[in-house]
Amino acid sequence: MGVVVSLDGEREKKPSLEALTALAENDLKKVNQLILDNMQSPVALIPQLAGHIIAAGGKRMRPMMTLIAAHMCGYQGERHLGLSACVEFIHTATLLHDDVVDESDLRRGRPSANAVWDNKASVLVGDFLFSRSFELMTADGSLDVLRILSNASAVIAEGEVLQLITANDTETSETAYLEVVKAKTAKLFAAAAQIGAVVAERPSVEEEALETFGTNFGIAFQIIDDALDYSAKQATLGKAVGDDFREGKITLPVILAFRRGDDDERAFWRRTLEELDQTDEDLDKAFELLNKHDALKDAVERARHYGAIARDALGIFDDGPEKSALIEAIDFCIERAY
Amino acid sequence: MGVVVSLDGEREKKPSLEALTALAENDLKKVNQLILDNMQSPVALIPQLAGHIIAAGGKRMRPMMTLIAAHMCGYQGERHLGLSACVEFIHTATLLHDDVVDESDLRRGRPSANAVWDNKASVLVGDFLFSRSFELMTADGSLDVLRILSNASAVIAEGEVLQLITANDTETSETAYLEVVKAKTAKLFAAAAQIGAVVAERPSVEEEALETFGTNFGIAFQIIDDALDYSAKQATLGKAVGDDFREGKITLPVILAFRRGDDDERAFWRRTLEELDQTDEDLDKAFELLNKHDALKDAVERARHYGAIARDALGIFDDGPEKSALIEAIDFCIERAY
Repeated sequence: MGVVVSLDGEREKKPSLEALTALAENDLKKVNQLILDNMQSPVALIPQLAGHIIAAGGKRMRPMMTLIAAHMCGYQGERHLGLSACVEFIHTATLLHDDVVDESDLRRGRPSANAVWDNKASVLVGDFLFSRSFELMTADGSLDVLRILSNASAVIAEGEVLQLITANDTETSETAYLEVVKAKTAKLFAAAAQIGAVVAERPSVEEEALETFGTNFGIAFQIIDDALDYSAKQATLGKAVGDDFREGKITLPVILAFRRGDDDERAFWRRTLEELDQTDEDLDKAFELLNKHDALKDAVERARHYGAIARDALGIFDDGPEKSALIEAIDFCIERAY
Repeated sequence: MGVVVSLDGEREKKPSLEALTALAENDLKKVNQLILDNMQSPVALIPQLAGHIIAAGGKRMRPMMTLIAAHMCGYQGERHLGLSACVEFIHTATLLHDDVVDESDLRRGRPSANAVWDNKASVLVGDFLFSRSFELMTADGSLDVLRILSNASAVIAEGEVLQLITANDTETSETAYLEVVKAKTAKLFAAAAQIGAVVAERPSVEEEALETFGTNFGIAFQIIDDALDYSAKQATLGKAVGDDFREGKITLPVILAFRRGDDDERAFWRRTLEELDQTDEDLDKAFELLNKHDALKDAVERARHYGAIARDALGIFDDGPEKSALIEAIDFCIERAY
């Protein structure tokens, strides 16, 4: 009987990031210190502004990818720490520039840097962190890492420009949406995971496996992020529900509902998201249409598909705590939608 | 008699960039092609916007520094071409972000990219060019070059932030002004010249000499640029006279006039440059005060000092066409004030 209770307990346990963060905890402390040390500058505004966004925290998902991938590859040294900080600097620089481009006032529930200071400072401090990241990589000395992260940075910028020019276009296809997601989000996850194998000097098949894992993990992560913007669950995550709707962002749930809708419904999406002509009732109407067409549910199904690819990519690695933690992270990233 | 005429002709010949551009001409064609090739992207807005600012041209001073320095160091290969393109990409990225920060509508007499497109696109395409530059450097494979240019990029960003927080402050000291100029302008000239010695695998004493040359050339260049903003000569260069005055920029001529002025004059500078409370007559009044205190003349004298250091730094190199052309470029950069 005790066994049954235990199994029930197992079955009901929701996936979490606990295993991942526990494995990364010691490393993450050192990475956070490296981040603090390397964002210093005699120009005080730089550590102030960078500290504001970096302290806001987030889950440090990307640097954790590097740390855990390196351990899974049997790496015993310290280089993954500095490279993990590089990944976080690139991510932070893109967040600073994103908030300028999106004219966002909030970031993870706190005022964004561009709201506290201004767009100018955010642009320039982003440039500083980006440059500092390449200084750190150069000090590490791996041309492979430099190749992977400089390419990732260029692809991220391309993705952001693509997103900018396709913004507020309800005709955006699922393919075009995915292309943006792959570039602006998944590419850095892929690079972060891949360099774990690079520092461990593992064969290219393991590098590729981690790249595939990171790409598909990143896609699933972003799809769920976009679905959460229309979910009651979102309110608990420090982001207001409906932000994307108010900004007219064309995300997967909307793409599905638009394509499955009739002429009247499409006119609704065009008015609200293209013309940004919205009334107080429109967000509720959007929820209703998304629900009618199973758009959120099916967005999660799409994410599950990419999650499955990410999981299979890890198949070539021996079982162990790091691999289990990464797989649980995939499940968490999808199940957090509920 | 013919000899006298010839000497008179020599004496009257103003220094120009002709010798420098003639020496760099063949290389520059290849560099321009590399720039075009490497700013391509399936996202069409990227080459469009990058092409707009890169085609606007300018004198390609920074990439020429790399080309000519490499030749002066006896370099026979092709690597200096790609690295010269890297230098121009970094410069272009900073111009794009500068125009956003300065809210400029004009760049070299043409509408700036942020005026034709918008700030968002300028930020992101800047990020793309910056990333692409590091991709190119990584492909070149020299960690020394990567160290020099990633450090230069971080210092440039620091200088821009410093300029931002000291903007519109008439109490700005000449030292603080110089610190900004060294970081935001001179650092890239220094790095561009230095990597000429790096590709040629010359001893560190030559690297340092070229770095010193570039730093001091860059300082002289920027001081004259700032003086020209108050000079009739400026009208011929595609930039409106008095732009810096209208934006309240605190440049060396103003710093000198402010410190040499009486209370009434300081009140004038505070009203016009700090409070940006300007009437139609104020620019003429500014000219008058600058003239009264020899502020433009003495700014040029300061530039001459840095030019002399730049010239002496080249002393360790054998005489030859490249060295002469670089020295003439120093003279040109200062004499263009007249």
